[in-house]
Amino acid sequence: MNDAAIVARNLRLVREKGPLVHNITNYVVMNTTANALLAVGASPIMAHAIEEIGDLIGIADALVLNIGTLSASWVASMRKAGEAARIRALPTVLDPVGVGASRMRTETALALLDAARPAVVRGNPSEILALARAAGCSEERAGTKGVDSVHTADAARSAAQALAKRHACTVVVSGPTDLVTDGESTVFLTGGSPLMPRVTGMGCTASALVGAFATVAESPLEAAVSAMAVMSGAGEIAALHAGGPGSFQVHFLDALYTLAETDLARSLHLTREES
Amino acid sequence: MNDAAIVARNLRLVREKGPLVHNITNYVVMNTTANALLAVGASPIMAHAIEEIGDLIGIADALVLNIGTLSASWVASMRKAGEAARIRALPTVLDPVGVGASRMRTETALALLDAARPAVVRGNPSEILALARAAGCSEERAGTKGVDSVHTADAARSAAQALAKRHACTVVVSGPTDLVTDGESTVFLTGGSPLMPRVTGMGCTASALVGAFATVAESPLEAAVSAMAVMSGAGEIAALHAGGPGSFQVHFLDALYTLAETDLARSLHLTREES
Amino acid sequence: MNDAAIVARNLRLVREKGPLVHNITNYVVMNTTANALLAVGASPIMAHAIEEIGDLIGIADALVLNIGTLSASWVASMRKAGEAARIRALPTVLDPVGVGASRMRTETALALLDAARPAVVRGNPSEILALARAAGCSEERAGTKGVDSVHTADAARSAAQALAKRHACTVVVSGPTDLVTDGESTVFLTGGSPLMPRVTGMGCTASALVGAFATVAESPLEAAVSAMAVMSGAGEIAALHAGGPGSFQVHFLDALYTLAETDLARSLHLTREES
Repeated sequence: MNDAAIVARNLRLVREKGPLVHNITNYVVMNTTANALLAVGASPIMAHAIEEIGDLIGIADALVLNIGTLSASWVASMRKAGEAARIRALPTVLDPVGVGASRMRTETALALLDAARPAVVRGNPSEILALARAAGCSEERAGTKGVDSVHTADAARSAAQALAKRHACTVVVSGPTDLVTDGESTVFLTGGSPLMPRVTGMGCTASALVGAFATVAESPLEAAVSAMAVMSGAGEIAALHAGGPGSFQVHFLDALYTLAETDLARSLHLTREES
Repeated sequence: MNDAAIVARNLRLVREKGPLVHNITNYVVMNTTANALLAVGASPIMAHAIEEIGDLIGIADALVLNIGTLSASWVASMRKAGEAARIRALPTVLDPVGVGASRMRTETALALLDAARPAVVRGNPSEILALARAAGCSEERAGTKGVDSVHTADAARSAAQALAKRHACTVVVSGPTDLVTDGESTVFLTGGSPLMPRVTGMGCTASALVGAFATVAESPLEAAVSAMAVMSGAGEIAALHAGGPGSFQVHFLDALYTLAETDLARSLHLTREES
Repeated sequence: MNDAAIVARNLRLVREKGPLVHNITNYVVMNTTANALLAVGASPIMAHAIEEIGDLIGIADALVLNIGTLSASWVASMRKAGEAARIRALPTVLDPVGVGASRMRTETALALLDAARPAVVRGNPSEILALARAAGCSEERAGTKGVDSVHTADAARSAAQALAKRHACTVVVSGPTDLVTDGESTVFLTGGSPLMPRVTGMGCTASALVGAFATVAESPLEAAVSAMAVMSGAGEIAALHAGGPGSFQVHFLDALYTLAETDLARSLHLTREES
């Protein structure tokens, strides 16, 4: 099966299965990521109270942890959810938003790496550089600009590979070219649209979709590649119809809902390296 | 006056009066429900701090309580708001999002039924089945999938009727066919669009609109029927123009704003049963 | 340089510089204001944990405090952020949403005036009247309807001027005609669209844009006039394409992204009074 066919099969499985993806995520993107999960065929649940984490992880198919808007009680809930998901062997995605921009974010991201042992970590290049350095597996320094990146994905390549090996996870570095690595295989995807960084939460949406695809794909690497391919494909269709970042968002959700195998075959530009 | 004329009159009254609807609702839908209330002609207020609940209930025309994203302090605020609204005889709507999916949600929904004595409870079929069972007025078991329903409205009919009688309230069960009952009369509305469950917070929006209509209608049953008729009418217009769930949302807000009596006359499909 | 040229220069500088605007704002508008800041060319950060305020103010270019959805811990974070921004001489914008509607809002707004010494305060007429009265610099009483205004900007003129003088800040009063005053000069801008009050958070978006423009303009007055001119210009373009408040929002973000100097030259209607 070629790459586009694998992505298409995973998209079909998400639509058929409608996996329940539990998100503890930031306030800014809750609405947009819930809508993206629904548009792609999954069922989102957004809940953060520590009192109900156990019950909800008990019915979820995947967990997405996103540290975009933290507070102490949310960090505690994320840790508890991560531990519960690990015990139940649910796939977990960690989105370390803004790691490196504050000590709290760096400490939280490291604590969640440890508590949840995520199957996939997704960030922008600055975040992955900062996380790999904080995790002690890279010497490279990250620049940072709040939650926006000042690096390319390729600049974070060796940091991503080191992080993937050290933490036995798949690492996604988003950008004009996305990089996905499990430490052995490294996949590069091009596509999407320059409007994507002008819309808040596109990265968070990618992380949520990785969670959905992790419930159907054969490996975390395949889940991450599938989700990023779907993001790129939907992004390219949306860009055709968009007059700016407002209409881009509208068409992006429509495209997630209507995306067909032929769209994926056309939009997928993927190269692979083995280390 | 026929049914469509009653709905149209209530819509006109909402637009004229601009009722102030106080919402303590979940993070995911705050923006969309505020926009829906504004589009339909009401004034939303979103506030949850227990310190200001008393002041704000003092100026509100209706209260909407939605348990979609709970935490202990929000539950306390909802109870206080519900009690204050009851004392002031404000109409209150309870949206028991995800009741049955966690013990915390079930306990909170029951506590709010008791504290607020809501005029209207609105949920999807799984939620109404779970709530009726938890309230001790139905033996039927609900399946649940997080916050999404796995039942039809008709499957929750007797549970809804029992809940309405026991708690002297109107119960709305949303779905492709909506059911509205006060325990005596039961009204079925068909319409809307299959895209609606692919958009997060359409149910929450319905609950918010019930709150607005409860300030002008002659009974909670009439308020609920009017709000659900407006949802269906706007949904059908939106579906005509939508290419997916993204553009559906945009056109739905436009349709709430522009909805005319002739649209309601065309879209309203209503049947009624007396028990 | 004429007024439109000054606004255009400041817009170009925002797009070139991409200032990092730290927002502690309400849940309802976080997504829309983040998207507006991105569309206009700035970088938003949304963060409220008191543990990370110091780190984040250390990298921010401006601070926006918005009291739309308060709780005690958020008030503490806002105070700390306001003090830190003052020490670093960052421009701060205060949006006193709903001040006057509850004692908590009034006390918080006064505390933040004191702690942050904002460069700009932006509110609707009811809010500015209520704040000026609470601050002891106006005898006029404000009506209020939750977070929506019942007054025109002109009705709040002398209150705004008194508040500006007393607190050495620029005050913006939004409405069909916007008023911007530093206590000496008072500028009136007409434009925008009647759909704007039917969209939640347009005022909050204006406040966020003032924050972005305060990092490039030559004075707080110029920053506020520039931001309000951009709001009006984008609003007029959006209204041309909008069928209601849903499509208005979409086109508004597109217009913020595409707004050109010629658009500003055409849309800017500005008068000025010196006192």
